[in-house]
Amino acid sequence: MTFQVYDTTLRDGAQREGLSYSVVDKLAVARLLDEFGVGFIEGGWPGAVPKDTEFFRRARTELPLRHALLVAFGATRKAGVAVADDPQVRALLDAQTPAVALVAKADIRHVERALRTTGAENLAMVRDTVAHLVAEGRRVFVDGEHFFDGFRHDPAYTASVVETALAAGAERFVLCDTNGGMLPSRVTAAITDLTARTGIAPESFGMHAQNDTACAVANTVAAVEAGVRHVQGTANGYGERPGNADLFAVVANLQLKLGLPVLPDGCLEQMVRVSHAIAEIANIAPDTHQAYAGAAAFAHKAGLHASAIKVDPLLYNHVDPSVVGNDMRILVTEMAGRASIELKSRELGLDLAGHPDAVSKVTARVKELEAGGWSFEAADASFELLVRSELPDAAPARPFTLESYRVLVEHREDGAVVSEATVKIRVRGERVIATAEGNGPVNALDEALRVGMSKHYPELRHFELADYKVRILEGTHGTGAVTRVLVETADGTGRDWTTVGVHPNVVEASWHALVDALTYGLDQAAVSNGHS
Amino acid sequence: MTFQVYDTTLRDGAQREGLSYSVVDKLAVARLLDEFGVGFIEGGWPGAVPKDTEFFRRARTELPLRHALLVAFGATRKAGVAVADDPQVRALLDAQTPAVALVAKADIRHVERALRTTGAENLAMVRDTVAHLVAEGRRVFVDGEHFFDGFRHDPAYTASVVETALAAGAERFVLCDTNGGMLPSRVTAAITDLTARTGIAPESFGMHAQNDTACAVANTVAAVEAGVRHVQGTANGYGERPGNADLFAVVANLQLKLGLPVLPDGCLEQMVRVSHAIAEIANIAPDTHQAYAGAAAFAHKAGLHASAIKVDPLLYNHVDPSVVGNDMRILVTEMAGRASIELKSRELGLDLAGHPDAVSKVTARVKELEAGGWSFEAADASFELLVRSELPDAAPARPFTLESYRVLVEHREDGAVVSEATVKIRVRGERVIATAEGNGPVNALDEALRVGMSKHYPELRHFELADYKVRILEGTHGTGAVTRVLVETADGTGRDWTTVGVHPNVVEASWHALVDALTYGLDQAAVSNGHS
Repeated sequence: MTFQVYDTTLRDGAQREGLSYSVVDKLAVARLLDEFGVGFIEGGWPGAVPKDTEFFRRARTELPLRHALLVAFGATRKAGVAVADDPQVRALLDAQTPAVALVAKADIRHVERALRTTGAENLAMVRDTVAHLVAEGRRVFVDGEHFFDGFRHDPAYTASVVETALAAGAERFVLCDTNGGMLPSRVTAAITDLTARTGIAPESFGMHAQNDTACAVANTVAAVEAGVRHVQGTANGYGERPGNADLFAVVANLQLKLGLPVLPDGCLEQMVRVSHAIAEIANIAPDTHQAYAGAAAFAHKAGLHASAIKVDPLLYNHVDPSVVGNDMRILVTEMAGRASIELKSRELGLDLAGHPDAVSKVTARVKELEAGGWSFEAADASFELLVRSELPDAAPARPFTLESYRVLVEHREDGAVVSEATVKIRVRGERVIATAEGNGPVNALDEALRVGMSKHYPELRHFELADYKVRILEGTHGTGAVTRVLVETADGTGRDWTTVGVHPNVVEASWHALVDALTYGLDQAAVSNGHS
Repeated sequence: MTFQVYDTTLRDGAQREGLSYSVVDKLAVARLLDEFGVGFIEGGWPGAVPKDTEFFRRARTELPLRHALLVAFGATRKAGVAVADDPQVRALLDAQTPAVALVAKADIRHVERALRTTGAENLAMVRDTVAHLVAEGRRVFVDGEHFFDGFRHDPAYTASVVETALAAGAERFVLCDTNGGMLPSRVTAAITDLTARTGIAPESFGMHAQNDTACAVANTVAAVEAGVRHVQGTANGYGERPGNADLFAVVANLQLKLGLPVLPDGCLEQMVRVSHAIAEIANIAPDTHQAYAGAAAFAHKAGLHASAIKVDPLLYNHVDPSVVGNDMRILVTEMAGRASIELKSRELGLDLAGHPDAVSKVTARVKELEAGGWSFEAADASFELLVRSELPDAAPARPFTLESYRVLVEHREDGAVVSEATVKIRVRGERVIATAEGNGPVNALDEALRVGMSKHYPELRHFELADYKVRILEGTHGTGAVTRVLVETADGTGRDWTTVGVHPNVVEASWHALVDALTYGLDQAAVSNGHS
C-alpha cells in the first residue's frame, strides 16, 4: 500500500497552548505543508469551528495543492441519531474535501463515561458514519481515539472498533496514543498483538502519537518498523500538552534512517524553510534545538575539536545538514578559541589567516562582551562589524556619530499614549537634529534616526525592521540584570541581517542594535553599488 | 547491579548554544540535581576548563551532597605519553572526586583522523588511564565516544575498546550516540550484538544519547529494556545541537512506565521544581511543552470535553501529574467556552455556579481581549481580577486612578543613559504627583508609582518585580504588531503572581501589567490582614 504522510497541524496541532490561526494563516500554512510534500492536510473541523468551515470554503478556490489532499475532520454520528440527520456529519460533506477523518472512541471507558452510550451503539456509530461517507464518495480515515489505552484495558472491544471501521470501508484505521503515554517497544507489541488478534495486516493502520513521554517521534518510527504505512504528525510537533509527533523529524527519520522515500523528490530539503515559516505564522519562536530543523541542529561549539570539524565535517554530523535544508554552524562562544573565531569569520567571507593580531583582539573582545551578556550566536552582522573593525582594510564606514538622544513616552489625561524621540547626530560633517513619533519608544528612536540620516542616505527607506526580540538576562552571573535586544532588518531584496545590543536600559540596548543594523546595511548597500 | 542515574548537565549539557554557567551557578545546579536524587553528577573537566577546576575545589567544602557522588570528566592520556606524566590525567586526580569519567574514542575513524594515532595506541591509552585511576582509588566510567557509529563501521575494533576498558577496571562502559543518529530498534540491536560478540552482560554498559533524531529519551529507555543499568542525561535535555536525553523524562519513564525505582523515595515529585530552578539558573525560558515537567505538560484546552475532564481527570492524563510535582491545568483560551471559564475560576477559588451572567460577561471579555493579543494562560492574577470585577461582592479594590504618566529616556552628551518617570495619580482621594528614576523606562515607571502610593500603602515596599518578559506579537492576524508583557511579582513571603498587559507601546503594555500586579498584591495583602 502507498505510504501516507498525513499532517494535522491545522487541526490537532492547533490545540497547542497559546496558538490561534486566522483563516488566512491556515491557508498559508496549508500551502507550506503542500510544498513540503505531505500527502494529506487535515484542515479542521467544519461545522464545529466556524473558522474551519470558512477555511474549507475558501480552500476550494484559493488553495491549488500540488501534492496534498485536503481532509475534513469530524466525529462519528451522535448516539441515537440517524447518520443522515446528523448536522455535524452533514457539515463534513459540505466541506467538499476528497477525504474525511472521523474520530471514533476506541476505549470502552471513554464510550461509557465520556460519550455515555453503549459499546454496541458506538460500533454502530462507527459503521453508519463510515458507510455513509464512503457512499457519498469520500475516502475515509478513522482515528481510534485512546486506542492504545483501550487496547490494553479491553483488547477485544478495541479490536472490534478497528474491525468495524475497516469493514465499513475506512481506508486506514489510525492507532491514536491520545494521552501520549506509550513507549516504542509497547507500540510494537500492540501492533503485533492487534494483527494476531484480527488478522488485519499493519499496512491498514496509521499511527498518531503524542509526546507526553518524549517518545512521539520514536513511537511513530516504531509503528512504521512494525509495518504501519500511514503516519500522522504536526509541523514542529505543535499540539496539546507536550505536543504531537514532529512530522519533520518523523519524515527525516523515515527517509534518511529507514530509507523510505515517503516524500516526493525535492521536498525534504524544504524542511527548514517550511518549519520556520510555519513558526512565523503560528507566532511561535522557532525551537533552536529542534532535531533536523532547528537553527542549532547542526551547530557546534567548536572549542576543542574545531580543527577536526574543519577537516571532516561528516564525522561530526549524523546526516548531511543540506538534505533537510539546514547548515552546519560554528558558534562563537566564550568556550571558543582562536580557531573558531577564524572558522566563523571564514563562514562570513573574512579571511583572518594573515592577521593573527586581529584574531587575538577579536577573541578578547568577544570574551569581554559575552561576560557582559552579549551573544553573537544569533547576530552575525554585529559579529562581522566587530571582526572587520579590527582588520586594516575592511573596517566598515560609520555613517554618523551620536551626540545625544531623548525618548519620551506619555500617557496623557485623555488616555492617548504617544512616543516621541529626538536624536542629535553628526552625518558627513553636518550636525542634524531630528524628531519623530512612533508607536513605541524604540520605533520612535528608529524613525528619528532615519529622518536625520535620510538626506545623506536615501537607500535607508528600503530598510525595514523585520523582527525585534527582547530578552531580560537575570543578574545570576554577579552583575545586575541587563536587557539583550536582537533586531532583524530586511532591505526588501530578500537580504536580512541580525544585530544585537545589550544594556541595563532597554532603549539603549535597542539603540546599539539599531545602529549596528544601519551601519551594516548601509555598508552592504555601498558594496553592492560598487562604492567601498 | 545497582541502577545508576548519571547526570551530565554541568559538563555535556553546558555545550548548549548560548549557555554559560558561573562557578556559583554550577554549585547551585549540583545542589538541585542532588535534591532530585541522581546518583552521579558530572561536574566538568578540571584542568581543561579553569571554571571547572574551581568548581571541584569549592565543591569540597560548599557542596555536601545527600544522594549524589561528584564525577570529574576528562580524556584518556595523550598518545605517546606515559599516563603518570600526563597533566590532564593529573588534574583529574587533583579534583579529588570519588569517581572519574574518561572519554575514549570508540570509532576507529576518529582514532585515526581526529586523534591521529593507531588503534593499538588508543587501546593502550584506555588501558593505562583506567588502570592508573583505579590504582589511585577512583571509580572509573568510560564514555565510548561515537560508540554506535564505530560499532556499525568496524564492530571488532569498537568491541575491543569496550573489552579493554572493562578489563582494565572500568565500572561501566557507556555507549555514546555522540552524533545522535540512532533509533530505538537500532540501540536494541547494537546492545544485543555487542553482548553476543563480547560475552559481556548489558548490566556493564551505560547509555548516553543525543537528540538529533528526536529519539534520545526513547533510545535511552530502549537501552534499559535491553538490560543497561546506567543512564546518562541532562536536566531539561540541555546539550549541544538538539541536546542530550532529558534526564527528567528518562527517569519518569523508567519509574512510571517500566516500574524501576531508580530514584530515592520522595525525589520524583521534586522534578518540576528542580527543572524550573535549573532553567532559571541557566537563564533559559522553561520549555512550556516539555514532557512531564512543562507547565503545559498536563494543560488541556478544555473546549469540547471540559465536562468529561471534570468528572474523570485520569482518563485524560497518562500519569497523575502530582507524582512529578506538576498539576493539571485548564486553559482559558478563545476555544474555551463557559465550562472552562467556570473550571478555571474554581481552580482559583471563585465559585461562579450561581452567577451565569458573570460567566457570560467574562467569557465575552476574554474572547475580545484574546483577539487583541492578550493571553491569560500564564497570568492567573490578571484573570482573577477580570473574573472578580464581574462578581457583585468580590470586585477588587482599585488602589488608585491614573491621570497621566510621562517617561523620559535620555542618552546624554557625556554618554550617561538616564530614565525618569512622573506619574500623576489619585490615591484615596488625594492627588499625587511623583517622579522617580530607574535603570530603564519600565523600572522608572514602577518606582514612580510606588513612590506615589507608599504613603497610603506601606506594604508595597515588600513587593518585588521578580520577572519581566516581553513578547512582540507580529501583526499576522490582521492587526498591527503589539507587545505583550508578563510581570511576575513576589511579596517576600514566598507568594508570587503573574499579570499581563498588551499594547502597541511596550511602556503602556508594561503599565497595564504593573497596575494589575499592584492591585492584585494589595488586595491579597488586605485579605491576609483581615480587611476586605
